[in-house]
Amino acid sequence: MKTPFHLILGSSSPRRKMLLEGIGLPFVTASLHGVNETNLPEGIAPLDIPQHLAQMKSRAYTKPLEENELLITADTLVFSASPHDTSSPWTIMGKPQNREEACQMLQNLSGNCHKVVTGVFLRSSKIHGIACGFSDKTKVWFSRLTEEEIQYYVDHYKPYDKAGGYGVQEWIGYIGIERIEGSFYNVMGFPTQKFWACLKQLNAVSFP
Amino acid sequence: MKTPFHLILGSSSPRRKMLLEGIGLPFVTASLHGVNETNLPEGIAPLDIPQHLAQMKSRAYTKPLEENELLITADTLVFSASPHDTSSPWTIMGKPQNREEACQMLQNLSGNCHKVVTGVFLRSSKIHGIACGFSDKTKVWFSRLTEEEIQYYVDHYKPYDKAGGYGVQEWIGYIGIERIEGSFYNVMGFPTQKFWACLKQLNAVSFP
Repeated sequence: MKTPFHLILGSSSPRRKMLLEGIGLPFVTASLHGVNETNLPEGIAPLDIPQHLAQMKSRAYTKPLEENELLITADTLVFSASPHDTSSPWTIMGKPQNREEACQMLQNLSGNCHKVVTGVFLRSSKIHGIACGFSDKTKVWFSRLTEEEIQYYVDHYKPYDKAGGYGVQEWIGYIGIERIEGSFYNVMGFPTQKFWACLKQLNAVSFP
Repeated sequence: MKTPFHLILGSSSPRRKMLLEGIGLPFVTASLHGVNETNLPEGIAPLDIPQHLAQMKSRAYTKPLEENELLITADTLVFSASPHDTSSPWTIMGKPQNREEACQMLQNLSGNCHKVVTGVFLRSSKIHGIACGFSDKTKVWFSRLTEEEIQYYVDHYKPYDKAGGYGVQEWIGYIGIERIEGSFYNVMGFPTQKFWACLKQLNAVSFP
């Protein structure tokens, strides 16, 4: 299995790296700097933000792309349901700043459904001229968590780098997630199946 | 976090062991022998078979259980949809015997929905008197797989030990599974969240 592209994953997330490794194509990683995640277009729909941020991350890779390079950027956000607000039924949950915020986030998720959205952006040099984005959405249902479970998780796993305050691949995902609707790997941070489908559309994979 | 029980996982599946490890309670494993998986009650509903097999595996552990031991057994089956057979809409897919059967199974799953059911049985000594079973069901949708993808997977991953001919945590799960409805870890072979809920009902976990 091979690709004519040199894939560059513009991300320093170890989870995203692990997920792209699961696809089995060679790639390198690059760290991005100077992405201003608060500078969003006025009126953008919340669920469109991850794809927009993936595109902003792509722009933050300022080195010119070689002819055969394909840059992959992605952004994952967690949205809690706000059933009483019909104008904005989904609210972004950021990363918890401290223990209290992490516990509060998990209390909000407990016994409820939330949505995880990962936006992906692919960009190649002007010669190939690829610039396309997509996103994948997964619904996640937590069981009713006890205070002891929440505190045990926060104190042992310190989920301060995680949107929504949890990692599906950690203890809380094993004991607390009743069901999902959508792609599991999307919840982890990268929609591997949709990415693969995109590569196939670009004729970017072949089986020797 | 602790349990008054000495947990025994009656399984030699490395995936099931890894999933139980995710729960974080100490346990030992035991291999079972002499389980006749074809000796089923007449008229049993297909989707009830995994739980029945989990109970048969429990019986195959013939050593008497000590007072504080809790034996955990499980069985996972994959069911393909048979939409034209109204009397039996779900058909068991076994483990593929050879390359041709493995490819055929994946062709059947390609572009379709199937169901993964894991039955679990918990048994303790007569003094505690616990003997309870449950099962968890997850629907899985594969994208339309190409012949090249199927052959690449079968030749590189040799899924001859896997019901349905695939592992969700392997390459084919990354590139081919569009979505699931239910528990992801159940598809891997053990419904961790339902097991945890069961332990809590038995007052079998505490946070020191």
